[in-house]
Amino acid sequence: MHAVGRKVWAIAEGYIPGESFSEDRRFVSHETACILNTGDAPAEITLTVFFAAREPAGPYRVTVPPRRTLHLRFNDLDPPIPRNTDYASLIESNVPIIVQHTRLDARDPHIALLSTIAFPVDQ
Amino acid sequence: MHAVGRKVWAIAEGYIPGESFSEDRRFVSHETACILNTGDAPAEITLTVFFAAREPAGPYRVTVPPRRTLHLRFNDLDPPIPRNTDYASLIESNVPIIVQHTRLDARDPHIALLSTIAFPVDQ
Amino acid sequence: MHAVGRKVWAIAEGYIPGESFSEDRRFVSHETACILNTGDAPAEITLTVFFAAREPAGPYRVTVPPRRTLHLRFNDLDPPIPRNTDYASLIESNVPIIVQHTRLDARDPHIALLSTIAFPVDQ
Amino acid sequence: MHAVGRKVWAIAEGYIPGESFSEDRRFVSHETACILNTGDAPAEITLTVFFAAREPAGPYRVTVPPRRTLHLRFNDLDPPIPRNTDYASLIESNVPIIVQHTRLDARDPHIALLSTIAFPVDQ
Repeated sequence: MHAVGRKVWAIAEGYIPGESFSEDRRFVSHETACILNTGDAPAEITLTVFFAAREPAGPYRVTVPPRRTLHLRFNDLDPPIPRNTDYASLIESNVPIIVQHTRLDARDPHIALLSTIAFPVDQ
Repeated sequence: MHAVGRKVWAIAEGYIPGESFSEDRRFVSHETACILNTGDAPAEITLTVFFAAREPAGPYRVTVPPRRTLHLRFNDLDPPIPRNTDYASLIESNVPIIVQHTRLDARDPHIALLSTIAFPVDQ
Repeated sequence: MHAVGRKVWAIAEGYIPGESFSEDRRFVSHETACILNTGDAPAEITLTVFFAAREPAGPYRVTVPPRRTLHLRFNDLDPPIPRNTDYASLIESNVPIIVQHTRLDARDPHIALLSTIAFPVDQ
Repeated sequence: MHAVGRKVWAIAEGYIPGESFSEDRRFVSHETACILNTGDAPAEITLTVFFAAREPAGPYRVTVPPRRTLHLRFNDLDPPIPRNTDYASLIESNVPIIVQHTRLDARDPHIALLSTIAFPVDQ
Protein backbone atom coordinates (compact mmCIF):
# COMPACT_ATOMS: atom_id res chain seq x y z
CA MET A 1 0.00 0.00 0.00
CA HIS A 2 1.31 3.44 -0.81
CA ALA A 3 1.47 6.41 1.52
CA VAL A 4 -1.55 8.70 1.26
CA GLY A 5 -2.28 12.14 2.67
CA ARG A 6 -0.08 15.20 2.94
CA LYS A 7 3.39 15.97 4.31
CA VAL A 8 2.61 19.12 6.31
CA TRP A 9 -0.30 19.59 8.71
CA ALA A 10 -1.28 22.32 11.16
CA ILE A 11 -3.47 22.36 14.28
CA ALA A 12 -4.31 25.90 15.41
CA GLU A 13 -6.12 24.82 18.60
CA GLY A 14 -4.23 23.42 21.58
CA TYR A 15 -4.95 23.40 25.32
CA ILE A 16 -4.26 20.69 27.87
CA PRO A 17 -6.44 21.20 30.95
CA GLY A 18 -4.31 21.09 34.08
CA GLU A 19 -6.71 19.02 36.14
CA SER A 20 -8.20 15.55 35.83
CA PHE A 21 -10.71 13.73 38.00
CA SER A 22 -8.71 10.51 37.73
CA GLU A 23 -5.11 9.32 37.42
CA ASP A 24 -6.19 6.50 35.12
CA ARG A 25 -4.40 7.26 31.82
CA ARG A 26 -7.71 6.94 29.98
CA PHE A 27 -9.23 9.73 32.05
CA VAL A 28 -6.35 12.15 32.32
CA SER A 29 -7.18 15.35 30.40
CA HIS A 30 -5.18 15.17 27.19
CA GLU A 31 -4.76 16.25 23.61
CA THR A 32 -3.78 13.93 20.81
CA ALA A 33 -2.42 14.25 17.30
CA CYS A 34 -3.71 11.06 15.70
CA ILE A 35 -1.33 10.20 12.87
CA LEU A 36 -1.91 7.55 10.21
CA ASN A 37 0.91 6.23 8.01
CA THR A 38 -0.61 3.96 5.35
CA GLY A 39 2.66 3.51 3.47
CA ASP A 40 5.47 0.97 3.46
CA ALA A 41 8.19 3.32 4.77
CA PRO A 42 8.50 4.82 8.25
CA ALA A 43 7.18 8.36 8.62
CA GLU A 44 9.86 10.54 10.20
CA ILE A 45 7.96 13.40 11.75
CA THR A 46 8.90 16.69 13.37
CA LEU A 47 6.48 18.58 15.55
CA THR A 48 6.83 22.31 16.30
CA VAL A 49 4.71 23.81 19.07
CA PHE A 50 3.70 27.50 19.00
CA PHE A 51 2.62 29.64 21.94
CA ALA A 52 0.97 33.01 22.52
CA ALA A 53 3.89 34.77 24.14
CA ARG A 54 7.16 32.91 23.60
CA GLU A 55 9.24 31.36 20.84
CA PRO A 56 8.15 27.95 19.48
CA ALA A 57 9.28 24.72 21.15
CA GLY A 58 10.80 21.80 19.27
CA PRO A 59 11.27 20.28 16.89
CA TYR A 60 10.03 17.19 18.69
CA ARG A 61 10.72 14.01 16.71
CA VAL A 62 8.56 10.91 16.39
CA THR A 63 8.46 7.98 13.99
CA VAL A 64 5.31 6.25 12.82
CA PRO A 65 6.17 2.78 11.48
CA PRO A 66 4.85 1.56 8.12
CA ARG A 67 1.12 0.71 8.09
CA ARG A 68 0.62 1.96 11.64
CA THR A 69 -1.23 4.70 13.48
CA LEU A 70 0.25 6.69 16.35
CA HIS A 71 -2.11 8.60 18.61
CA LEU A 72 0.52 10.96 19.95
CA ARG A 73 -0.39 12.60 23.25
CA PHE A 74 0.91 16.14 23.52
CA ASN A 75 0.97 15.42 27.27
CA ASP A 76 3.85 12.97 26.72
CA LEU A 77 6.20 15.35 24.88
CA ASP A 78 9.56 16.08 26.49
CA PRO A 79 10.30 18.88 27.25
CA PRO A 80 6.68 19.11 28.39
CA ILE A 81 3.91 21.31 26.99
CA PRO A 82 2.70 23.55 29.83
CA ARG A 83 -0.84 22.90 31.06
CA ASN A 84 -3.63 25.50 31.03
CA THR A 85 -1.80 27.25 28.20
CA ASP A 86 -2.88 28.09 24.63
CA TYR A 87 -0.72 26.47 21.98
CA ALA A 88 -0.79 25.32 18.34
CA SER A 89 1.29 22.89 16.32
CA LEU A 90 2.87 22.22 12.95
CA ILE A 91 3.54 18.62 11.90
CA GLU A 92 6.00 17.86 9.10
CA SER A 93 6.68 14.41 7.68
CA ASN A 94 9.04 12.97 5.07
CA VAL A 95 6.17 10.94 3.60
CA PRO A 96 2.43 11.61 3.27
CA ILE A 97 0.40 11.06 6.44
CA ILE A 98 -3.08 11.89 7.80
CA VAL A 99 -3.53 13.92 11.02
CA GLN A 100 -6.58 14.40 13.26
CA HIS A 101 -6.72 16.44 16.48
CA THR A 102 -8.63 15.32 19.60
CA ARG A 103 -9.03 16.62 23.15
CA LEU A 104 -10.47 14.77 26.12
CA ASP A 105 -11.33 17.22 28.89
CA ALA A 106 -11.55 15.30 32.18
CA ARG A 107 -11.59 18.17 34.61
CA ASP A 108 -15.07 16.93 35.46
CA PRO A 109 -15.93 13.20 35.75
CA HIS A 110 -18.51 13.76 33.01
CA ILE A 111 -15.91 14.26 30.30
CA ALA A 112 -16.12 16.43 27.17
CA LEU A 113 -14.61 15.65 23.77
CA LEU A 114 -13.67 17.57 20.65
CA SER A 115 -12.06 16.45 17.40
CA THR A 116 -11.29 17.76 13.93
CA ILE A 117 -9.27 16.86 10.92
CA ALA A 118 -6.08 18.92 11.05
CA PHE A 119 -5.38 21.38 8.23
CA PRO A 120 -3.42 19.93 5.30
CA VAL A 121 -0.96 22.71 4.51
CA ASP A 122 0.41 21.32 1.26
CA GLN A 123 -2.83 20.75 -0.60
CA MET B 1 -28.58 12.49 -9.27
CA HIS B 2 -24.90 11.82 -9.84
CA ALA B 3 -22.40 10.58 -7.29
CA VAL B 4 -20.52 13.37 -5.53
CA GLY B 5 -17.54 13.36 -3.20
CA ARG B 6 -14.30 11.39 -3.35
CA LYS B 7 -13.35 7.73 -3.71
CA VAL B 8 -10.76 7.47 -0.93
CA TRP B 9 -11.10 8.79 2.62
CA ALA B 10 -9.04 8.46 5.77
CA ILE B 11 -9.88 8.78 9.48
CA ALA B 12 -6.75 9.01 11.64
CA GLU B 13 -8.63 8.92 14.96
CA GLY B 14 -10.27 5.76 16.24
CA TYR B 15 -11.07 4.49 19.74
CA ILE B 16 -14.10 2.55 20.94
CA PRO B 17 -14.46 2.89 24.72
CA GLY B 18 -14.85 -0.55 26.29
CA GLU B 19 -17.56 0.43 28.72
CA SER B 20 -21.09 1.80 28.42
CA PHE B 21 -23.58 2.83 31.04
CA SER B 22 -26.41 1.16 29.13
CA GLU B 23 -27.03 -1.81 26.85
CA ASP B 24 -29.49 0.23 24.78
CA ARG B 25 -27.92 0.37 21.32
CA ARG B 26 -28.34 4.15 21.29
CA PHE B 27 -26.21 4.47 24.42
CA VAL B 28 -23.51 1.90 23.77
CA SER B 29 -20.16 3.66 23.29
CA HIS B 30 -19.48 3.56 19.58
CA GLU B 31 -17.71 5.02 16.59
CA THR B 32 -19.32 5.54 13.24
CA ALA B 33 -18.18 6.15 9.68
CA CYS B 34 -21.17 8.00 8.24
CA ILE B 35 -21.18 7.35 4.49
CA LEU B 36 -23.34 9.14 1.92
CA ASN B 37 -23.84 7.79 -1.59
CA THR B 38 -25.76 10.38 -3.61
CA GLY B 39 -25.41 8.50 -6.90
CA ASP B 40 -27.51 6.03 -8.85
CA ALA B 41 -25.11 3.07 -8.53
CA PRO B 42 -24.27 1.07 -5.41
CA ALA B 43 -21.05 2.10 -3.65
CA GLU B 44 -18.86 -0.95 -3.13
CA ILE B 45 -16.60 -0.02 -0.24
CA THR B 46 -13.57 -1.57 1.40
CA LEU B 47 -12.45 -0.54 4.86
CA THR B 48 -8.91 -1.13 6.15
CA VAL B 49 -8.24 -0.67 9.86
CA PHE B 50 -4.78 0.32 11.12
CA PHE B 51 -3.39 -0.18 14.62
CA ALA B 52 -0.42 1.03 16.67
CA ALA B 53 1.39 -2.27 17.02
CA ARG B 54 0.13 -4.84 14.54
CA GLU B 55 -0.61 -5.28 10.86
CA PRO B 56 -3.82 -3.75 9.47
CA ALA B 57 -7.13 -5.64 9.58
CA GLY B 58 -9.40 -6.06 6.62
CA PRO B 59 -10.39 -5.31 4.02
CA TYR B 60 -13.90 -5.22 5.44
CA ARG B 61 -16.55 -4.89 2.72
CA VAL B 62 -19.78 -2.94 2.80
CA THR B 63 -22.22 -1.72 0.17
CA VAL B 64 -24.12 1.55 0.32
CA PRO B 65 -27.14 1.41 -2.01
CA PRO B 66 -27.91 4.22 -4.48
CA ARG B 67 -29.21 7.44 -2.87
CA ARG B 68 -28.71 6.10 0.64
CA THR B 69 -26.63 6.83 3.72
CA LEU B 70 -25.02 4.15 5.86
CA HIS B 71 -23.89 5.09 9.35
CA LEU B 72 -21.48 2.19 9.74
CA ARG B 73 -20.62 1.35 13.34
CA PHE B 74 -17.03 0.18 13.72
CA ASN B 75 -18.42 -1.77 16.70
CA ASP B 76 -20.31 -4.03 14.29
CA LEU B 77 -17.35 -5.09 12.12
CA ASP B 78 -16.50 -8.78 12.00
CA PRO B 79 -13.81 -9.75 12.91
CA PRO B 80 -14.27 -7.18 15.70
CA ILE B 81 -12.25 -4.05 16.35
CA PRO B 82 -10.73 -4.37 19.84
CA ARG B 83 -12.08 -1.95 22.47
CA ASN B 84 -9.92 0.51 24.39
CA THR B 85 -7.45 0.42 21.50
CA ASP B 86 -6.11 3.15 19.22
CA TYR B 87 -6.91 2.61 15.57
CA ALA B 88 -7.38 4.48 12.27
CA SER B 89 -9.09 3.64 9.00
CA LEU B 90 -8.92 3.98 5.23
CA ILE B 91 -12.13 3.84 3.22
CA GLU B 92 -12.04 3.11 -0.51
CA SER B 93 -15.06 3.16 -2.83
CA ASN B 94 -15.65 2.41 -6.51
CA VAL B 95 -17.76 5.58 -6.81
CA PRO B 96 -17.53 9.00 -5.11
CA ILE B 97 -18.93 9.13 -1.56
CA ILE B 98 -18.84 11.46 1.45
CA VAL B 99 -17.50 10.28 4.85
CA GLN B 100 -17.86 11.79 8.33
CA HIS B 101 -16.48 10.33 11.58
CA THR B 102 -18.40 10.38 14.89
CA ARG B 103 -17.84 8.96 18.37
CA LEU B 104 -20.38 8.65 21.16
CA ASP B 105 -18.61 8.04 24.47
CA ALA B 106 -21.12 6.53 26.91
CA ARG B 107 -18.75 5.40 29.64
CA ASP B 108 -20.60 7.94 31.76
CA PRO B 109 -24.39 8.44 31.58
CA HIS B 110 -23.69 12.06 30.67
CA ILE B 111 -22.36 11.21 27.21
CA ALA B 112 -19.70 13.02 25.17
CA LEU B 113 -19.64 13.42 21.39
CA LEU B 114 -17.07 14.24 18.74
CA SER B 115 -17.35 14.47 14.96
CA THR B 116 -15.33 15.59 11.97
CA ILE B 117 -15.38 15.35 8.23
CA ALA B 118 -12.98 12.58 7.26
CA PHE B 119 -9.96 13.44 5.08
CA PRO B 120 -10.58 13.21 1.33
CA VAL B 121 -7.40 11.56 0.09
CA ASP B 122 -7.96 11.97 -3.63
CA GLN B 123 -8.59 15.71 -3.79
CA MET C 1 -18.50 42.10 -0.36
CA HIS C 2 -18.56 39.20 -2.80
CA ALA C 3 -19.91 35.73 -2.13
CA VAL C 4 -17.26 33.28 -0.94
CA GLY C 5 -17.30 29.53 -0.43
CA ARG C 6 -18.75 26.78 -2.58
CA LYS C 7 -22.12 26.06 -4.19
CA VAL C 8 -22.54 22.40 -3.16
CA TRP C 9 -21.95 20.95 0.30
CA ALA C 10 -22.59 17.54 1.89
CA ILE C 11 -23.07 16.41 5.48
CA ALA C 12 -22.83 12.62 5.83
CA GLU C 13 -23.79 12.56 9.53
CA GLY C 14 -27.30 13.27 10.69
CA TYR C 15 -29.29 12.16 13.75
CA ILE C 16 -31.81 14.11 15.79
CA PRO C 17 -32.23 12.52 19.22
CA GLY C 18 -35.90 11.99 19.97
CA GLU C 19 -35.76 13.12 23.57
CA SER C 20 -34.85 16.35 25.34
CA PHE C 21 -34.66 17.18 29.01
CA SER C 22 -36.32 20.56 28.37
CA GLU C 23 -38.88 22.18 26.11
CA ASP C 24 -36.84 25.39 26.02
CA ARG C 25 -35.86 25.79 22.36
CA ARG C 26 -32.23 26.25 23.39
CA PHE C 27 -32.21 22.84 25.06
CA VAL C 28 -34.23 20.79 22.63
CA SER C 29 -31.98 18.18 21.00
CA HIS C 30 -31.30 19.47 17.50
CA GLU C 31 -29.09 19.48 14.45
CA THR C 32 -28.18 22.58 12.52
CA ALA C 33 -26.77 23.40 9.10
CA CYS C 34 -25.12 26.75 9.76
CA ILE C 35 -25.05 28.64 6.46
CA LEU C 36 -23.13 31.85 5.76
CA ASN C 37 -23.87 34.02 2.74
CA THR C 38 -21.22 36.76 2.56
CA GLY C 39 -22.39 38.08 -0.80
CA ASP C 40 -24.73 40.81 -1.99
CA ALA C 41 -27.34 38.52 -3.56
CA PRO C 42 -29.76 36.16 -1.80
CA ALA C 43 -28.65 32.53 -1.65
CA GLU C 44 -31.43 30.30 -2.98
CA ILE C 45 -30.74 26.93 -1.42
CA THR C 46 -32.17 23.44 -1.87
CA LEU C 47 -31.63 20.75 0.73
CA THR C 48 -31.98 17.03 -0.04
CA VAL C 49 -32.12 14.59 2.87
CA PHE C 50 -30.93 10.98 2.47
CA PHE C 51 -31.88 8.00 4.62
CA ALA C 52 -30.69 4.43 5.17
CA ALA C 53 -33.71 2.62 3.84
CA ARG C 54 -35.93 4.91 1.80
CA GLU C 55 -35.79 7.40 -1.06
CA PRO C 56 -34.47 10.90 -0.32
CA ALA C 57 -36.76 13.64 0.96
CA GLY C 58 -36.95 17.09 -0.55
CA PRO C 59 -35.87 19.27 -2.06
CA TYR C 60 -36.50 21.60 0.87
CA ARG C 61 -36.03 25.26 -0.06
CA VAL C 62 -34.57 28.07 2.03
CA THR C 63 -33.23 31.52 1.26
CA VAL C 64 -30.32 33.15 3.06
CA PRO C 65 -30.43 36.92 2.54
CA PRO C 66 -27.35 38.91 1.48
CA ARG C 67 -24.69 39.29 4.20
CA ARG C 68 -26.58 37.06 6.62
CA THR C 69 -26.15 33.73 8.35
CA LEU C 70 -28.94 31.19 8.77
CA HIS C 71 -28.52 28.48 11.37
CA LEU C 72 -31.08 26.13 9.87
CA ARG C 73 -32.46 23.54 12.28
CA PHE C 74 -33.18 20.22 10.60
CA ASN C 75 -35.82 19.89 13.35
CA ASP C 76 -37.83 22.67 11.73
CA LEU C 77 -38.08 21.19 8.22
CA ASP C 78 -41.53 20.43 6.86
CA PRO C 79 -42.27 17.63 6.10
CA PRO C 80 -40.37 16.67 9.25
CA ILE C 81 -37.15 14.67 9.53
CA PRO C 82 -37.92 11.61 11.66
CA ARG C 83 -36.21 11.49 15.07
CA ASN C 84 -33.87 8.71 16.20
CA THR C 85 -33.12 8.03 12.54
CA ASP C 86 -29.84 8.11 10.59
CA TYR C 87 -29.81 10.63 7.77
CA ALA C 88 -27.44 12.74 5.63
CA SER C 89 -27.88 15.85 3.53
CA LEU C 90 -26.83 17.61 0.36
CA ILE C 91 -27.02 21.40 0.18
CA GLU C 92 -27.03 23.19 -3.18
CA SER C 93 -26.97 26.97 -3.66
CA ASN C 94 -27.11 29.33 -6.63
CA VAL C 95 -24.24 31.36 -5.14
CA PRO C 96 -21.20 30.39 -3.03
CA ILE C 97 -21.91 29.80 0.66
CA ILE C 98 -20.17 28.24 3.70
CA VAL C 99 -21.78 25.36 5.64
CA GLN C 100 -21.00 23.93 9.08
CA HIS C 101 -22.84 21.08 10.83
CA THR C 102 -23.65 21.06 14.56
CA ARG C 103 -25.61 18.77 16.90
CA LEU C 104 -26.76 19.55 20.42
CA ASP C 105 -27.71 16.35 22.22
CA ALA C 106 -29.97 17.25 25.15
CA ARG C 107 -31.28 13.81 26.05
CA ASP C 108 -29.44 14.38 29.31
CA PRO C 109 -29.41 17.76 31.11
CA HIS C 110 -25.62 17.69 30.83
CA ILE C 111 -25.64 18.26 27.08
CA ALA C 112 -23.14 17.05 24.48
CA LEU C 113 -22.05 18.91 21.33
CA LEU C 114 -20.41 18.07 18.04
CA SER C 115 -19.54 20.23 15.04
CA THR C 116 -17.62 20.01 11.79
CA ILE C 117 -17.18 21.94 8.61
CA ALA C 118 -19.37 20.29 5.98
CA PHE C 119 -17.73 18.80 2.89
CA PRO C 120 -17.36 21.23 -0.04
CA VAL C 121 -18.31 19.07 -3.01
CA ASP C 122 -17.29 21.45 -5.79
CA GLN C 123 -13.71 22.16 -4.73
CA MET D 1 10.07 29.61 8.94
CA HIS D 2 7.66 30.80 6.28
CA ALA D 3 3.98 31.55 6.68
CA VAL D 4 1.71 28.60 5.86
CA GLY D 5 -2.04 28.30 5.45
CA ARG D 6 -4.51 30.56 3.72
CA LYS D 7 -5.36 34.28 3.85
CA VAL D 8 -9.17 34.03 4.09
CA TRP D 9 -11.14 31.74 6.40
CA ALA D 10 -14.82 31.41 7.27
CA ILE D 11 -16.67 29.99 10.28
CA ALA D 12 -20.40 29.51 9.60
CA GLU D 13 -21.26 28.45 13.17
CA GLY D 14 -21.26 30.93 16.04
CA TYR D 15 -23.16 31.08 19.32
CA ILE D 16 -21.98 32.26 22.72
CA PRO D 17 -24.22 30.86 25.46
CA GLY D 18 -25.36 33.61 27.76
CA GLU D 19 -24.90 31.70 30.98
CA SER D 20 -21.95 30.11 32.75
CA PHE D 21 -21.79 28.11 35.95
CA SER D 22 -18.60 29.92 36.99
CA GLU D 23 -16.95 33.32 36.69
CA ASP D 24 -13.53 31.69 36.34
CA ARG D 25 -12.34 32.68 32.87
CA ARG D 26 -11.60 29.05 32.07
CA PHE D 27 -15.24 28.13 32.71
CA VAL D 28 -17.06 31.04 31.17
CA SER D 29 -18.99 29.87 28.10
CA HIS D 30 -17.00 31.09 25.12
CA GLU D 31 -16.13 30.71 21.47
CA THR D 32 -12.63 30.97 20.11
CA ALA D 33 -11.01 31.50 16.73
CA CYS D 34 -7.65 29.82 17.23
CA ILE D 35 -5.20 31.48 14.84
CA LEU D 36 -1.69 30.25 14.04
CA ASN D 37 0.89 32.46 12.34
CA THR D 38 3.94 30.33 11.52
CA GLY D 39 5.68 33.08 9.56
CA ASP D 40 8.26 35.75 10.32
CA ALA D 41 5.96 38.75 9.75
CA PRO D 42 3.01 39.90 11.87
CA ALA D 43 -0.41 38.76 10.64
CA GLU D 44 -2.70 41.79 10.37
CA ILE D 45 -6.17 40.34 10.58
CA THR D 46 -9.68 41.71 10.10
CA LEU D 47 -12.71 39.88 11.43
CA THR D 48 -16.23 40.47 10.11
CA VAL D 49 -19.17 39.08 12.07
CA PHE D 50 -22.45 38.17 10.34
CA PHE D 51 -25.88 37.83 11.94
CA ALA D 52 -29.29 36.42 11.03
CA ALA D 53 -31.21 39.67 10.98
CA ARG D 54 -28.91 42.69 10.84
CA GLU D 55 -25.95 44.04 8.92
CA PRO D 56 -22.49 42.61 9.68
CA ALA D 57 -20.35 44.02 12.51
CA GLY D 58 -16.73 44.99 12.12
CA PRO D 59 -14.19 44.88 10.81
CA TYR D 60 -12.56 44.01 14.12
CA ARG D 61 -8.76 44.14 13.93
CA VAL D 62 -6.22 41.90 15.62
CA THR D 63 -2.54 41.22 15.11
CA VAL D 64 -0.89 37.85 15.58
CA PRO D 65 2.86 38.30 16.04
CA PRO D 66 5.40 36.22 14.08
CA ARG D 67 5.64 32.57 15.16
CA ARG D 68 2.78 32.91 17.62
CA THR D 69 -0.74 31.59 18.12
CA LEU D 70 -3.67 33.72 19.26
CA HIS D 71 -6.73 32.00 20.65
CA LEU D 72 -9.08 34.90 20.10
CA ARG D 73 -12.22 34.80 22.21
CA PHE D 74 -15.23 36.21 20.41
CA ASN D 75 -16.43 37.09 23.92
CA ASP D 76 -13.67 39.70 24.16
CA LEU D 77 -14.52 41.65 20.99
CA ASP D 78 -15.49 45.30 21.36
CA PRO D 79 -18.17 46.28 20.43
CA PRO D 80 -19.41 43.00 21.94
CA ILE D 81 -20.99 40.04 20.17
CA PRO D 82 -24.47 39.55 21.64
CA ARG D 83 -24.98 36.37 23.67
CA ASN D 84 -27.58 33.70 22.84
CA THR D 85 -27.46 34.89 19.22
CA ASP D 86 -26.59 33.05 16.00
CA TYR D 87 -23.60 34.50 14.18
CA ALA D 88 -20.86 33.58 11.71
CA SER D 89 -17.48 35.11 10.85
CA LEU D 90 -15.05 35.85 8.06
CA ILE D 91 -11.35 36.19 8.88
CA GLU D 92 -9.00 37.93 6.45
CA SER D 93 -5.23 38.20 6.88
CA ASN D 94 -2.40 39.88 4.97
CA VAL D 95 -0.30 36.70 5.29
CA PRO D 96 -1.23 33.01 5.36
CA ILE D 97 -2.58 31.73 8.68
CA ILE D 98 -4.42 28.67 10.04
CA VAL D 99 -7.81 29.01 11.81
CA GLN D 100 -9.72 26.55 14.01
CA HIS D 101 -13.07 27.18 15.72
CA THR D 102 -13.89 26.01 19.27
CA ARG D 103 -16.81 26.45 21.68
CA LEU D 104 -16.85 25.69 25.38
CA ASP D 105 -20.43 25.53 26.65
CA ALA D 106 -20.41 26.01 30.41
CA ARG D 107 -24.09 26.60 31.02
CA ASP D 108 -23.90 23.37 33.01
CA PRO D 109 -20.93 22.52 35.28
CA HIS D 110 -20.42 19.40 33.18
CA ILE D 111 -19.19 21.32 30.16
CA ALA D 112 -19.55 20.45 26.48
CA LEU D 113 -17.01 21.14 23.72
CA LEU D 114 -17.01 21.39 19.95
CA SER D 115 -14.25 22.20 17.48
CA THR D 116 -13.59 22.19 13.75
CA ILE D 117 -11.07 23.45 11.30
CA ALA D 118 -12.48 26.64 9.77
CA PHE D 119 -13.14 26.74 6.02
CA PRO D 120 -10.20 27.96 3.93
CA VAL D 121 -11.87 30.23 1.40
CA ASP D 122 -8.90 30.82 -0.89
CA GLN D 123 -7.91 27.23 -1.57
